[in-house]
Amino acid sequence: MTIQTVSRNRSHGGVQGVYKHASRETGTDMTFSVYVPPHQEGAKLPVVWYLSGLTCTHANVTEKGEFCGACAELGLIMVAPDTSPRGENVAGDPAKSWDFGLGAGFYVDATEAPFAQNYRMWSYVTEELPGLVAEHFPIDRNRQSVFGHSMGGHGALTVALRHPDRYRAASAFSPIVAPSQVPWGHKALGGYLGGDRQGWRKHDAVALIEDGAKFSDLLVDVGDADPFLAEQLRPQLLQAACEKAGIPLLLRMQPGYDHSYYFISTFMADHLRWHAARLKA
Amino acid sequence: MTIQTVSRNRSHGGVQGVYKHASRETGTDMTFSVYVPPHQEGAKLPVVWYLSGLTCTHANVTEKGEFCGACAELGLIMVAPDTSPRGENVAGDPAKSWDFGLGAGFYVDATEAPFAQNYRMWSYVTEELPGLVAEHFPIDRNRQSVFGHSMGGHGALTVALRHPDRYRAASAFSPIVAPSQVPWGHKALGGYLGGDRQGWRKHDAVALIEDGAKFSDLLVDVGDADPFLAEQLRPQLLQAACEKAGIPLLLRMQPGYDHSYYFISTFMADHLRWHAARLKA
Repeated sequence: MTIQTVSRNRSHGGVQGVYKHASRETGTDMTFSVYVPPHQEGAKLPVVWYLSGLTCTHANVTEKGEFCGACAELGLIMVAPDTSPRGENVAGDPAKSWDFGLGAGFYVDATEAPFAQNYRMWSYVTEELPGLVAEHFPIDRNRQSVFGHSMGGHGALTVALRHPDRYRAASAFSPIVAPSQVPWGHKALGGYLGGDRQGWRKHDAVALIEDGAKFSDLLVDVGDADPFLAEQLRPQLLQAACEKAGIPLLLRMQPGYDHSYYFISTFMADHLRWHAARLKA
Repeated sequence: MTIQTVSRNRSHGGVQGVYKHASRETGTDMTFSVYVPPHQEGAKLPVVWYLSGLTCTHANVTEKGEFCGACAELGLIMVAPDTSPRGENVAGDPAKSWDFGLGAGFYVDATEAPFAQNYRMWSYVTEELPGLVAEHFPIDRNRQSVFGHSMGGHGALTVALRHPDRYRAASAFSPIVAPSQVPWGHKALGGYLGGDRQGWRKHDAVALIEDGAKFSDLLVDVGDADPFLAEQLRPQLLQAACEKAGIPLLLRMQPGYDHSYYFISTFMADHLRWHAARLKA
């Protein structure tokens, strides 16, 4: 599969690139960014997948995430996909709804019309994009990890809990931990997957844990001034599920921080060090 | 003078804010950003002024500059002004010209109509804004320094060379060092100051040094893959002038880097450490 280079910039000793390709899963062009740190010719590097939140493209974290320096220091490749298919023929009008449709794929393979045709973000981020990235970048597929923000924190947790063998570490900033129990999730899972709530459980971190999913350990940072904390994020639901299931969770309530990239960038290096320790173990 | 808070976000332990005020110099509303690091109640902190490049507002460096972490560590306040007056009645059409007019004030007080009325960025960044910031933020006016990028590197160098007593340190990323000798400068200085080139000399770092201006020492980083290097930046002119005048200049050509914020963010912490060492000496 071919990729087209949109831009490449030297950053912190490595290369921050943006690339585009025709996706078979989404049936659209998809854009993603990859940071490759300085490395020895021929080396294969661990790769960290970053899944973004509502309304975001690859660009938000790429421009504001402050990850290149830490990735350079730790020898990590970081990949940031888009959050949904996009294009004139793709259903979902962002003028009508910012939390469903374009920019809000919720990391599921939609089953409901008209979304089923293009909204295949689960298969895209877990299968198609990893394969494509492995063809074009020096990643070690035996050393992958995943993290994300908000809707992307939900994506990271569900991806990790369903593939604990594939992802050696997982963490999240302000994740939606139980979409089945909050308004954003009701709208998205209902819209993409239909009304049968049983089908939502494999896209709900708390439900996955209740149903027996395991993971080595998890790191979650949430700002206590996050305006979405009480209604949409509800990290205590994850805490309770992890406690019951015996999954070690380091949940940190960060005083004064909100939902923005100012919060994410503050703790980015910390998360990357958490991933590196597990990817290099 | 009053300021209006546009936004405030906790970042790296401090507060990144964006503020707006009615400027007497420009006759318009002006927006600027201020990062205040964690500090002891009542303390006065050194302040670093960051001047941005063509087309930028305060937002570019605020979102992409990766300075909060270093400012928090070093105890520095950083202020980033806009690059020109803006508003419906302000001359300068960005659709016609991206390198003159809106977003391209060049840090001069214009003398030519119709720009003289609003384009007073020299007085704004050296007098009005420092006064305003001192009223509202805990800065120590005896410990100020200045840096910037491209057009803002030009601004930083000229500001420092004309006020060596006021700014204890100065540095630049990819600065325009001799606007009198390059196309961007011909257009801007000619447009704002008129055709008498003698009047341009106090807004040209190389000319200022030739005319006797002194500064303790200067740090300049330029990417050797910068597309503007040979025609617009010409750092070797600054190097020659500094050598002749006995001004210590640390000029670093950074291999593979371009003109973007990926370059700036890579060396941001380095510059802030340079400033901190001089501000705290």
